[in-house]
Amino acid sequence: MTQNRIYNFNAGPAALPLPVLEEIQESFLNFAGSGMSITEISHRSKWFDDVINDAAERTKRLLNLDNRFKILFIQGGASMQFCMIPMNLLPEGRSADYVNTGTWSTKAIKEVKVLGKNVNIAGSSEDKNFSYIPKDLQFSRDAAYVHITSNNTIKGTQWAQFPDTQGIPLMADMSSDIMSRPFDTAPFGVIYAGAQKNIGPSGICMVIIRDDMLERVPENLPAMLKYTTYSEKNSMYNTPPCFTIYTVQLVLKWLEETVGGLDKMEEINNKKAELLYSLFDSSSFYRGTAEKDSRSKMNVTFRLPDEELEKAFIQKALDNGFGGLKGHRSVGGCRASIYNATGLDAIEALVDFMKTFEKNNG
Amino acid sequence: MTQNRIYNFNAGPAALPLPVLEEIQESFLNFAGSGMSITEISHRSKWFDDVINDAAERTKRLLNLDNRFKILFIQGGASMQFCMIPMNLLPEGRSADYVNTGTWSTKAIKEVKVLGKNVNIAGSSEDKNFSYIPKDLQFSRDAAYVHITSNNTIKGTQWAQFPDTQGIPLMADMSSDIMSRPFDTAPFGVIYAGAQKNIGPSGICMVIIRDDMLERVPENLPAMLKYTTYSEKNSMYNTPPCFTIYTVQLVLKWLEETVGGLDKMEEINNKKAELLYSLFDSSSFYRGTAEKDSRSKMNVTFRLPDEELEKAFIQKALDNGFGGLKGHRSVGGCRASIYNATGLDAIEALVDFMKTFEKNNG
Repeated sequence: MTQNRIYNFNAGPAALPLPVLEEIQESFLNFAGSGMSITEISHRSKWFDDVINDAAERTKRLLNLDNRFKILFIQGGASMQFCMIPMNLLPEGRSADYVNTGTWSTKAIKEVKVLGKNVNIAGSSEDKNFSYIPKDLQFSRDAAYVHITSNNTIKGTQWAQFPDTQGIPLMADMSSDIMSRPFDTAPFGVIYAGAQKNIGPSGICMVIIRDDMLERVPENLPAMLKYTTYSEKNSMYNTPPCFTIYTVQLVLKWLEETVGGLDKMEEINNKKAELLYSLFDSSSFYRGTAEKDSRSKMNVTFRLPDEELEKAFIQKALDNGFGGLKGHRSVGGCRASIYNATGLDAIEALVDFMKTFEKNNG
Repeated sequence: MTQNRIYNFNAGPAALPLPVLEEIQESFLNFAGSGMSITEISHRSKWFDDVINDAAERTKRLLNLDNRFKILFIQGGASMQFCMIPMNLLPEGRSADYVNTGTWSTKAIKEVKVLGKNVNIAGSSEDKNFSYIPKDLQFSRDAAYVHITSNNTIKGTQWAQFPDTQGIPLMADMSSDIMSRPFDTAPFGVIYAGAQKNIGPSGICMVIIRDDMLERVPENLPAMLKYTTYSEKNSMYNTPPCFTIYTVQLVLKWLEETVGGLDKMEEINNKKAELLYSLFDSSSFYRGTAEKDSRSKMNVTFRLPDEELEKAFIQKALDNGFGGLKGHRSVGGCRASIYNATGLDAIEALVDFMKTFEKNNG
């Protein structure tokens, strides 16, 4: 731990790579020789053009996106996308297919209904308290798109493989696992991700949109709610959150240049998750809450024998420099969020701590 | 100039107080003893509660707001408010009065029309290229509200006194002059301000809303576009931009504790503006573009005898450490934005430079 920093297992906002934080700190009063802080430069300057363009280029390289995809930066988090997607991409008279894997999918579905549009639930794991990713999906014949949440931060589930939608454009909320692994982007119409888990601080949502989706955008939408406003103005119709996008750029640079890309990142993430899950599988003290084939490699949710012990565990962990291990307030229990920036060393230290805690309390 | 920092006359994002930047820098790897960066802490933590609540309390004290007003933090800048205000506060069948003082008012008016709602232009200075603030205003009898832009960054005009709307709630886009002077808040239903000029970095809009306005909010709006979502959840229905709100908090603290409040701030701002405008009034070389009684104390727009000289002036200024003096791309000419954080010393240095430039080129 550097400078009394803790091991950060927050679900989001979450840990950022230390070299990124150090670079921001070092140049905070004078960005790129501009004589200004990154928070003070004009978004119409060459300095900021370089930042936002580099962030987009790195995204394309990291995800191996072809030229049909545009990278947009939109404020309001994934929650704003819950309404922008149906507003922009669900034409009147058609319906959209949603797979419900818990809180975030449920919220996304609700927004389609608020807009008075038609939703078909193509699959759901509500029957077992969202503890798994559903396999049997029923797509509508006229579906304008299929929407999924790639990883559920609360229930600790994740799509190991994305569904075959038979050509229907796939929309995915990847807020909590974007850039954690490579995947085939071809089936996707839109990939979106609030930055505050794997790619930056809170305050920006990355929206990766395929050009045929932009053709669906209706004319009569307010400017800030229209994807074409962002695609036509390089996300600078109005002032973008410059500091936030700059931090995203640095995280993507770290992913490319320090980690070495998404294959390497996935390898590390697999090791990290394996360390925790194998502990559960060999222990009767710690119990994972997600079904085995649906386990998330980003949010590891687990219970202890009783709530008293969970409370003691979370407190003892805090005292030992492990933060953020409390489960989401809607479900209780414990959760270790182990996004890209939480290193193998942090997981190893946590597993050691957990073994000791079990020994003393099991 | 500290650490090779320039004199920053950017129109926004703009200069921030140096002590604020230094405090952010110093605590960037370990915020408030949390062992995490402000970019890494949970928005559900006591740490962030303290930040957002302190920012709201300081806003109430600085503007002398009574308890009917709520302070909301919403993403998307003032441009998002251009659509949220009519969506939330203009009931079906009624119309809204807008005063058109240039680009930003024009954009706000456009959004009402896009939503298919009724607008009445209560006043406009379009006849003279928006170089003044209109005095003769005609309000509709059934207007749901009157909307104004308190300061026009592009044309360099500002409302010296706010209009008497005879009880109709006043809505004001104060992005470019909020916290620059005290004013009577009683007539206002909503005051909103993109932070990136006077109160922080880009990426957050402060929305000050009176409780009777919240009663107008219709049920069937997407969650992120509804004022009540923010008022009921202390602006944390989803993850807010924590770093940005933290910086706003520090700027407000600086305003209260270092500057000494808005009376003091206004005194300084008056002196700053006076230095520049008196130069124009005694010179035939520099010519202010706004009519005298409508001059902005935030954005001082001016021309030189010809465009060649303007180009040379802007370049020479840059070479001498004065940044951001180019006029908005839609109007050309020159502009010195002199928001709260641009100190009297910067204006004095600029005036000296301008006098020398006139001597050498006049």
